Amino acid sequence: MSDETPPAPLFTLGAGPVDPYPAVKAAFARPIPSEFDPAFAALYARVNDAVTRALAAPTPAVILQGEAILGLEAAAASLIGEGDVVLNLASGIFGKGFGYWAQRYAKEVLEIEVPYDEAIDPAAVAAMLERRPDIKVVSVVHHETPTGTINPVAEIGAITRAADALLIVDAVSSFGGMAIDAETARADIFVAGPGKCLGGAPGLTFLGLSERAWAHIEANPKTPFASILSIKDWRHAHRADAPFPFTPLMADINGLDATMALYVEEGPERVWARHALTARACRRGARAMGLALWPKRDEIAADSVTALRLPAGVDGEAVVAAARARYGVMLSGGVGALAGKLVRIGHMGPTANPLHAVLALTALGGALRALGQNIDIGAGIEAAMAVADADLKT
Amino acid sequence: MSDETPPAPLFTLGAGPVDPYPAVKAAFARPIPSEFDPAFAALYARVNDAVTRALAAPTPAVILQGEAILGLEAAAASLIGEGDVVLNLASGIFGKGFGYWAQRYAKEVLEIEVPYDEAIDPAAVAAMLERRPDIKVVSVVHHETPTGTINPVAEIGAITRAADALLIVDAVSSFGGMAIDAETARADIFVAGPGKCLGGAPGLTFLGLSERAWAHIEANPKTPFASILSIKDWRHAHRADAPFPFTPLMADINGLDATMALYVEEGPERVWARHALTARACRRGARAMGLALWPKRDEIAADSVTALRLPAGVDGEAVVAAARARYGVMLSGGVGALAGKLVRIGHMGPTANPLHAVLALTALGGALRALGQNIDIGAGIEAAMAVADADLKT
Amino acid sequence: MSDETPPAPLFTLGAGPVDPYPAVKAAFARPIPSEFDPAFAALYARVNDAVTRALAAPTPAVILQGEAILGLEAAAASLIGEGDVVLNLASGIFGKGFGYWAQRYAKEVLEIEVPYDEAIDPAAVAAMLERRPDIKVVSVVHHETPTGTINPVAEIGAITRAADALLIVDAVSSFGGMAIDAETARADIFVAGPGKCLGGAPGLTFLGLSERAWAHIEANPKTPFASILSIKDWRHAHRADAPFPFTPLMADINGLDATMALYVEEGPERVWARHALTARACRRGARAMGLALWPKRDEIAADSVTALRLPAGVDGEAVVAAARARYGVMLSGGVGALAGKLVRIGHMGPTANPLHAVLALTALGGALRALGQNIDIGAGIEAAMAVADADLKT
Amino acid sequence: MSDETPPAPLFTLGAGPVDPYPAVKAAFARPIPSEFDPAFAALYARVNDAVTRALAAPTPAVILQGEAILGLEAAAASLIGEGDVVLNLASGIFGKGFGYWAQRYAKEVLEIEVPYDEAIDPAAVAAMLERRPDIKVVSVVHHETPTGTINPVAEIGAITRAADALLIVDAVSSFGGMAIDAETARADIFVAGPGKCLGGAPGLTFLGLSERAWAHIEANPKTPFASILSIKDWRHAHRADAPFPFTPLMADINGLDATMALYVEEGPERVWARHALTARACRRGARAMGLALWPKRDEIAADSVTALRLPAGVDGEAVVAAARARYGVMLSGGVGALAGKLVRIGHMGPTANPLHAVLALTALGGALRALGQNIDIGAGIEAAMAVADADLKT
Repeated sequence: MSDETPPAPLFTLGAGPVDPYPAVKAAFARPIPSEFDPAFAALYARVNDAVTRALAAPTPAVILQGEAILGLEAAAASLIGEGDVVLNLASGIFGKGFGYWAQRYAKEVLEIEVPYDEAIDPAAVAAMLERRPDIKVVSVVHHETPTGTINPVAEIGAITRAADALLIVDAVSSFGGMAIDAETARADIFVAGPGKCLGGAPGLTFLGLSERAWAHIEANPKTPFASILSIKDWRHAHRADAPFPFTPLMADINGLDATMALYVEEGPERVWARHALTARACRRGARAMGLALWPKRDEIAADSVTALRLPAGVDGEAVVAAARARYGVMLSGGVGALAGKLVRIGHMGPTANPLHAVLALTALGGALRALGQNIDIGAGIEAAMAVADADLKT
Repeated sequence: MSDETPPAPLFTLGAGPVDPYPAVKAAFARPIPSEFDPAFAALYARVNDAVTRALAAPTPAVILQGEAILGLEAAAASLIGEGDVVLNLASGIFGKGFGYWAQRYAKEVLEIEVPYDEAIDPAAVAAMLERRPDIKVVSVVHHETPTGTINPVAEIGAITRAADALLIVDAVSSFGGMAIDAETARADIFVAGPGKCLGGAPGLTFLGLSERAWAHIEANPKTPFASILSIKDWRHAHRADAPFPFTPLMADINGLDATMALYVEEGPERVWARHALTARACRRGARAMGLALWPKRDEIAADSVTALRLPAGVDGEAVVAAARARYGVMLSGGVGALAGKLVRIGHMGPTANPLHAVLALTALGGALRALGQNIDIGAGIEAAMAVADADLKT
Repeated sequence: MSDETPPAPLFTLGAGPVDPYPAVKAAFARPIPSEFDPAFAALYARVNDAVTRALAAPTPAVILQGEAILGLEAAAASLIGEGDVVLNLASGIFGKGFGYWAQRYAKEVLEIEVPYDEAIDPAAVAAMLERRPDIKVVSVVHHETPTGTINPVAEIGAITRAADALLIVDAVSSFGGMAIDAETARADIFVAGPGKCLGGAPGLTFLGLSERAWAHIEANPKTPFASILSIKDWRHAHRADAPFPFTPLMADINGLDATMALYVEEGPERVWARHALTARACRRGARAMGLALWPKRDEIAADSVTALRLPAGVDGEAVVAAARARYGVMLSGGVGALAGKLVRIGHMGPTANPLHAVLALTALGGALRALGQNIDIGAGIEAAMAVADADLKT
Repeated sequence: MSDETPPAPLFTLGAGPVDPYPAVKAAFARPIPSEFDPAFAALYARVNDAVTRALAAPTPAVILQGEAILGLEAAAASLIGEGDVVLNLASGIFGKGFGYWAQRYAKEVLEIEVPYDEAIDPAAVAAMLERRPDIKVVSVVHHETPTGTINPVAEIGAITRAADALLIVDAVSSFGGMAIDAETARADIFVAGPGKCLGGAPGLTFLGLSERAWAHIEANPKTPFASILSIKDWRHAHRADAPFPFTPLMADINGLDATMALYVEEGPERVWARHALTARACRRGARAMGLALWPKRDEIAADSVTALRLPAGVDGEAVVAAARARYGVMLSGGVGALAGKLVRIGHMGPTANPLHAVLALTALGGALRALGQNIDIGAGIEAAMAVADADLKT
């Protein structure tokens, strides 16, 4: 079959992007009006408002026209001025990476780095802010997708606010799946996107900014404008009387409209509960199969991604390939330096259900067996189901 | 009706984005696999190859993950180094705007500017290149969407190549609707996108680069990398063994797959002929209604957009609003400083048919009448049909 | 091009089925649950209720699982018993055809037939009912789609009710586009479907029945049961506790859900007004082009279809073919014995807008010209627009 | 939650209709042309041809415009004349039901009935045909969906042909999932539909007829015509020069086009192998969970549906409801007199994959546990996976 196109996957159960909810996919197929059409202006305003509410953003949300990574790069480029000292918090690959962006724009970048199976200690942040009162911007990743760990952003947010610094939070792969938003995090720039826990597609990113963040951006002479990287250009884009800086991604806006509607309709608390339940079931099941969690402690394990260490001598890439080839199930492996070292199961949006965890664990177990490991899949399924059933009894 | 959402438009007949072909909209609703899925790698390679062929690009096309404006900004940011002298050719708002980007990166920007109802004279370019042999980069817009004019890029390309300078061509709103591609234009960076004449949606942009362009980019120490603005990051993204720099816009890639398939299936020559015929019918019809073309001469009028001057005392924005409110037809007005001064009819992709021109002219005529003008719509329709019928007779 | 598949039409402007509203097409692509799924039971109940209200049906509507012709045949087969005398009213091909069905089941079929460009005279019906008090069932077509004529069903309904006979009304191609429903028509069986003025697709039919009709059906020993032709089988299908007689057309039910939602959202009165305005514009335009209406008088011309006589010596099939081949516009020709004798323009649901009439008239005029006729298209467009503009002024 | 609409199911894993393949759902959303459009004529011809080939039908297939039950009723109504003696073979509810239809039309109906967990013995058919050489029509169900049993239609077909009788085969829920077609079955009328193993939606039915069947139909004075029940009306509908008897179900025809394309693209043998593998895995897994197969022997168990007996004292309806409410998994219960007595897992088209069986077994096991049963889900999953893995090793 070497010269054939691989068949479509049966189940996409990795760390995102997710296969969106059906209503989102249908919305992507809606007619596309002119960007100047009054009906589009009304749609954009409605979507922007829904995003603002979901983010609990202190000012109208800004939707940027690209994947979530655009929101993160734009946040660094817009907020961090050449006089700013930045404290970057790195508990994983994404946090570490943000530091490189910070260095492009900052006067100085300090960093607290912890092992990538650990989380940032708020006390360490507090200590650093006390030692260096010139720190102007703190940056942190809520959910480190590559390793499935969560940082205590609410605590870090409170500490940062107390120190009068500005906080950038990357919540791209947790927002919509966990109880986190701009208000809870006391974030000055809170970055998220539709392609993960919200169950949309990865074509847009949105940011919730505080008035303090806007003031700092407006005061930054190097803040991008007339650029894809500009946040400022889009500040008033949701207003009917303001033109768009450039053509929005019309199909993606249609998709985001449906994405936000579903989130509101189901209710955020219910959505979060699905994610939490599925994560617990998945962790319990994986352990019963003899696998170890990548995060050091359950308390720092994400509700949206379960990252698992591999048995000695097993290549994670081979595991992912085997699950895909044998069962049509697409899991995620490790990223960058972690390639081959772990396997990840996503439970995000449409896949945040216990039976999706059962599917993922079954395929993972079968793949490990095919690579010579002795895995008790049945025990894994039983354990995962026990978690689901305990929840259903209450 | 002030508190109601405006009804959806019945016909979107402006200068783009277009309402895509039905098959493109359906493709946007396809399942979304993981970006690491082997089926997605195969899809991406197939799409990239189709784009490369359509562009007649000398090296594999680069698809950037944003609207076409990203391709243009990225071209400026990547190619133009701080030692480069740039000759920017401005025959309209887009060309003028590109000059501002060039100034961000270049050592010096020279400009040839002509009135925005005229086209660049290749002889002037040749003269400038002779006078200033240190010019390293020439930039030109093929189709000035805001005014419906076309520049002679093939001639400019030959002259630029002879002078050993590098040429950037913005063909965003003409590619796919006219006989222009990277080879014909002798472009070193040829920028286009799916949301105009190809009849797709505006979520991606693609570039055809020459080996010379790549060499200049690689030699530019300031060329963006690890950035949404980087072309370099995506150079090998089409290869199965190369990871994506970040998550592609999956739904948009699905849409682009269908977009390119339709283009190939109908055949570029047939598509171009549709555009040319519709443009001729539209111009003839508009004149018969007593309206004047914005472009000075028919030879420089685009096949994809017909821009029309307004009778004295008529506000173009009011005309567009009236056509939309009365007939559900969305036309385009003027952009920026030209707001209110002209009206534009698009004939791009799905709307590049004589009867779409009839629709647009009818709505335009009705709107002008509602604003007190004396317009002979019937004469316009007759004239447009005469063009269509003459073509059908041959 | 003889061996190629014809290209898709650009505009479908005939007498139906229509190309549905975009939201209806999107609904057809929704997931399909089991017919036993509780979510499907809820959906079916909701759809059935929406249909009942729209029909103003005295008892819960019955949705039959096939094209509207199934509803008509089932009405004949279910209601008309072998002891029944039927009065069939024939003002066109569909009415005439219904008489043949009536003959299959009735003891005797009486018929009032008028020329197919005329309408039934209620006085004639009253006279017949007086002469033959044994008439049990009267059958009438509201809109004769093949000829675009309307019968005065409200008057006929009142007369029939007064005579204590049962009335079957075929409103398949007018319901949703004109002010007609089961109550207005005093129909005992009122048959309609989604594929015409409602702007849905032609996969279902629905019936509004009076208690008197149900009593007559239940008393009819030959009424179909355990059959696709049975109305009785589906009487309680909308109830959550009643199983479906057989698998419903799931995708079509999804489509009908969206169809009814759009009708309610826009508001029936507005929808009817669109149809009426478009019909007036179309008739005026056609006359200005020198064409004559098929119906004898404007008062009996339908709001949903404009049927036009052809100039002497012109073959209607050739006209339809020319409009399709030259302009991508699909009109309707004549049916059965009327093939070649007339041309029909539909204005139903999504095409019930003045500019769709402009399109249809333009293509019709162009086709006639191509066949050698001298047609003033411009005058036609002017006349049609005058009607639209007069309406917009009020 | 009593007053809320139930949430959509997560997985539809019952005995059909299936949730169609994504490409089929997308096709349902395609534009709908006029039924007289030349592009539709070409589409219909292409679809009809694909169906004819798939059915291995001796004459061009007939597509009837309704659910598969229409095909079956029409076969009875069209083929069976009032002089015909029919031998009806009843090994389940559907076979038994067909006998009632036969009685409407036949001179006499003989029946061989076996317990509904058994299959028809070809020797008994041979014996009956020898005893009653006046038998003109034999009718048999290939797959009894309500009980998951298969009849040996190839043997029955050979015997029937040898006796010069005509054979009607109901293959609605097995065609496309098992190696059965009109040729293999030597069927004179072979009835199937798109909504089961082909992975389409249940809006159409198609029949493969022999020349002998056509001759018998044409000779039957009572064969339906001008009726939804007529096969004869549609005999030539696939020909470009033949009008449709009435409007086809346009959206469903679009869906069928995609359905057949997928079947051909994957290849029937591969599709059947998926079904067979999944059925084996499902049966093995169910047994390992302590459940018994409804069919007496594995040899007569269908590849498309696994029917399972319930432990004593367990109500099948409660099991189905629990799996749906707790896990979002929709299974099937028993039909008619078998309601509550069994549970069925479908593996049809998109769900004919081992991991779908894992899902179904997990939900079934969890539901049984919730109802107080002691079920070893883990053992079931292990057993099902062992079957899948054995297949993957070869």
